[in-house]
Amino acid sequence: MRKLILIINDDGITSRGITALAESVSDLGEVHVVAPDSPQSGMGHAVTIGDILRIKKCRFPVDGVTAHSTSGTPVDCVKLAIYKILDRKPDLLISGINHGSNSSINVIYSGTMSAAVEGAVESIPAIGFSLLDHSPDADFAAAKKVARMMCKEVLERGLPKGVCLNVNIPKVTEKELKGVKICRQSAGYWEDEFEERIAPNKEIYYWLKGTFTNPDKGEDTDEYALSQGFASIVPTQFDLTAHHAISELNSWGIKLGGK
Amino acid sequence: MRKLILIINDDGITSRGITALAESVSDLGEVHVVAPDSPQSGMGHAVTIGDILRIKKCRFPVDGVTAHSTSGTPVDCVKLAIYKILDRKPDLLISGINHGSNSSINVIYSGTMSAAVEGAVESIPAIGFSLLDHSPDADFAAAKKVARMMCKEVLERGLPKGVCLNVNIPKVTEKELKGVKICRQSAGYWEDEFEERIAPNKEIYYWLKGTFTNPDKGEDTDEYALSQGFASIVPTQFDLTAHHAISELNSWGIKLGGK
Repeated sequence: MRKLILIINDDGITSRGITALAESVSDLGEVHVVAPDSPQSGMGHAVTIGDILRIKKCRFPVDGVTAHSTSGTPVDCVKLAIYKILDRKPDLLISGINHGSNSSINVIYSGTMSAAVEGAVESIPAIGFSLLDHSPDADFAAAKKVARMMCKEVLERGLPKGVCLNVNIPKVTEKELKGVKICRQSAGYWEDEFEERIAPNKEIYYWLKGTFTNPDKGEDTDEYALSQGFASIVPTQFDLTAHHAISELNSWGIKLGGK
Repeated sequence: MRKLILIINDDGITSRGITALAESVSDLGEVHVVAPDSPQSGMGHAVTIGDILRIKKCRFPVDGVTAHSTSGTPVDCVKLAIYKILDRKPDLLISGINHGSNSSINVIYSGTMSAAVEGAVESIPAIGFSLLDHSPDADFAAAKKVARMMCKEVLERGLPKGVCLNVNIPKVTEKELKGVKICRQSAGYWEDEFEERIAPNKEIYYWLKGTFTNPDKGEDTDEYALSQGFASIVPTQFDLTAHHAISELNSWGIKLGGK
């Protein structure tokens, strides 16, 4: 049976990135796209539990690829695909190609990566791809090359249990791309700011703006690899336990009624 | 200067759980509540990047506690509190008390826990509290006792860098509560299902339903502690790197152009 590849994203079914991703793997198996009907950036691991969901079969601009849009979040799309749309479990779940970075702390805000993480929760080998370029005419050639190679590797080898991959591609041409590096998530973060504005009715409202700050100079990080022209590959897990902190907390000797 | 305590939740500013949490710590410092103006369960780490945000000062039913509601997600509330509403960095961020469990895999879908994680990202000691009872007349006494004790501990000791706490309280009376246990996140997950319905206009729509399944029989897990009548405390981190998988991936010898 042909390998079943499920494609998800968070920029919505009409984005250039999801078309690029489908093009890069369309001959590697039977490819299904299930994506939000509108952009869902920054949705993190949001899931629709208090509202209804809709599914619509739709056209997709890559030959042989079938597609559905949904009214839900990226994680909803994964669940709808697995439990409602597809007739068997996918061999590979890929998400993206996201327009913008999901390296470093961005992984926790990212709908693209949450879809990949949800794949791992469902025991499906999963990869999220993101290109460090927000511009509408971004060059996806390097990202497509990396995506195709990584999908072939993971279709062949699988992934360790409970692990998916966070792959970011620098803003370079296919020729300039130096290669890929296995990395850890850097400790960079956002310094946030809110811009205050006044509506015509005099009500005050706010826009979130942020500046990315990276005090982590480790050469084993995703940020470092990207800065050197490499695509970064971070194995990513959904066990959020800080295992190293368990013994410290046990040493506190916390007792009910002690305080 | 009095300790500054920031309270967030995902069930919305009018929920019983956030009132219970404020009551349990109102004498431990200067307490500010910043919470969504409507329920935001299942929002995960969603952040509002493509839309505006509003803030409203509002009444809160606990003496001495000031409160603001916002139009945003739980994570937006944390950012708005830190960067716009409060005049100094909180000494402690607490989130909850959530109506329903955030143990096991629920941590990744949870707005309550994402607010705590965002606190950790901002280097603020942070704790999320959740009670395993969805009913409107749930008994919060045991949860309040645990919350008060944990807040005192963490105000005194702080938390390891990059770590927040995921605290779940079983559905028991204050007297029945056995104590607290430091745990790891269990490997339980949701078997999802979508219930199909037909709208008056004949359109099909879906409701997500799920059944929690836990194949992880470890006695060091949050699920086990809760099943034995203990509150579970899981140290939780935002470094999602699966560090143990780095050497395996390196052994693949992936090369661009190799495939």
